[in-house]
Amino acid sequence: MNGKQIKKFVRHRRVAFLGSVDGEGFPNVKAVCAPRKIEGNDYYFLSNLSSARVAQWRENGNACLYFYRKGLFSYAGVIFVGRVEVVTEQTVKDELWRAGDKFIYKGGSSDPDYCVLKFTAERGRWYRDLKTANFSV
Amino acid sequence: MNGKQIKKFVRHRRVAFLGSVDGEGFPNVKAVCAPRKIEGNDYYFLSNLSSARVAQWRENGNACLYFYRKGLFSYAGVIFVGRVEVVTEQTVKDELWRAGDKFIYKGGSSDPDYCVLKFTAERGRWYRDLKTANFSV
Repeated sequence: MNGKQIKKFVRHRRVAFLGSVDGEGFPNVKAVCAPRKIEGNDYYFLSNLSSARVAQWRENGNACLYFYRKGLFSYAGVIFVGRVEVVTEQTVKDELWRAGDKFIYKGGSSDPDYCVLKFTAERGRWYRDLKTANFSV
Repeated sequence: MNGKQIKKFVRHRRVAFLGSVDGEGFPNVKAVCAPRKIEGNDYYFLSNLSSARVAQWRENGNACLYFYRKGLFSYAGVIFVGRVEVVTEQTVKDELWRAGDKFIYKGGSSDPDYCVLKFTAERGRWYRDLKTANFSV
């Protein structure tokens, strides 16, 4: 996959997977909605400040971001490895906010439990069918 | 989710996600086919001995195993945290082998690149809609 194919692949996914390392050194992973915003190597997600995983990233920002597609006969995946920063600045929260988010964050864009995860990719690897290769970002 | 619901949920998934920690301390995750066999807290998967991820687990067996389902209006996920053991014993490889695997492992069940990952769950956490809780295994 070349850079253009990787970007297109990522932008078409509805679900992403964010990985963290917990306080005991074990990997954790969870499905999240597609990034709300992508800017260069930065991927922005909405999250809950009180969650166990946000606590993990505040302790250890090491992270991965994974996208995959499983077709009937083919499989493709892209993983980025990098760092997560937990952002609570109101201007950033306002920028990413959409009206429907009130279903989850009752207090609106200033809900104290609403925070933004900014994942910055440092390197990547793609998989397609039985091929795989590292790439730089 | 109670224990019975968790077991049923896991057995109905076609895709699972295995997490590892790489040599630099970053989490990695990859989609894999559903476990070939589940026995108590042990989940068995087919893998490639030469792969980067198998090398990671041989170095650091810390792992997670994640299953999720995204419906139109609901989301559910189950994560297990535990250890991966890379198994190359021929009796285990033979036991898990199915004829169709020859598409990937040309040398059959004795293909030197075919290995088995045995993931042993130590603890778990479930997510359903906006609820979540830890559970023991």
